[in-house]
Amino acid sequence: MIKVSVMYPNKSGARFDHEYYLQKHMPLVQARMGDKLKTFSVDKGVAGGVPGSEPTYLVICNMFCESAEAFQAGFGPHVKEIMSDVPKYTDLTPVIQMSEVVVG
Amino acid sequence: MIKVSVMYPNKSGARFDHEYYLQKHMPLVQARMGDKLKTFSVDKGVAGGVPGSEPTYLVICNMFCESAEAFQAGFGPHVKEIMSDVPKYTDLTPVIQMSEVVVG
Repeated sequence: MIKVSVMYPNKSGARFDHEYYLQKHMPLVQARMGDKLKTFSVDKGVAGGVPGSEPTYLVICNMFCESAEAFQAGFGPHVKEIMSDVPKYTDLTPVIQMSEVVVG
Repeated sequence: MIKVSVMYPNKSGARFDHEYYLQKHMPLVQARMGDKLKTFSVDKGVAGGVPGSEPTYLVICNMFCESAEAFQAGFGPHVKEIMSDVPKYTDLTPVIQMSEVVVG
């Protein structure tokens, strides 16, 4: 199992429409990827390591797929459509990484 | 539900003993936090957003707790013991953040 993490930095003054993201963007990703996307999670940053400090990331999305190939097969054909939806909810550039799930 | 993410930056030349981390450190965290730690995951970075690029984080651990208070109650009393175990597997300083799980 792999996990693709999309992490939106917590930049002061940045725009992020949580409602559009949850109600429109993620359902679009889900619809386009179909069963290649096993499941996903969305987290909203609350604090950094020290209580009361700012979180490093405003939003973290994790997409779970069977393999890197499954992710590419699901996401690849729709990358243009999905990426062109991003400016509708944010002006942030996410940090993206693919990881192997070692403990699930 | 909240998630505490502990993200170890992928710094060239850094030391990280995956075996110690999985076999000794995480079991220690689990034993000390008891039922305050609902579950946890460990991911190993494979690539960045562009296939073949370096991942931003070498290892990402997510600890799931009922609330910020539950995390503090489980982790707080053992912070000294747990933190003093860290140099045994790495010389990296992790990025830590607490998030609210919006989609689970």
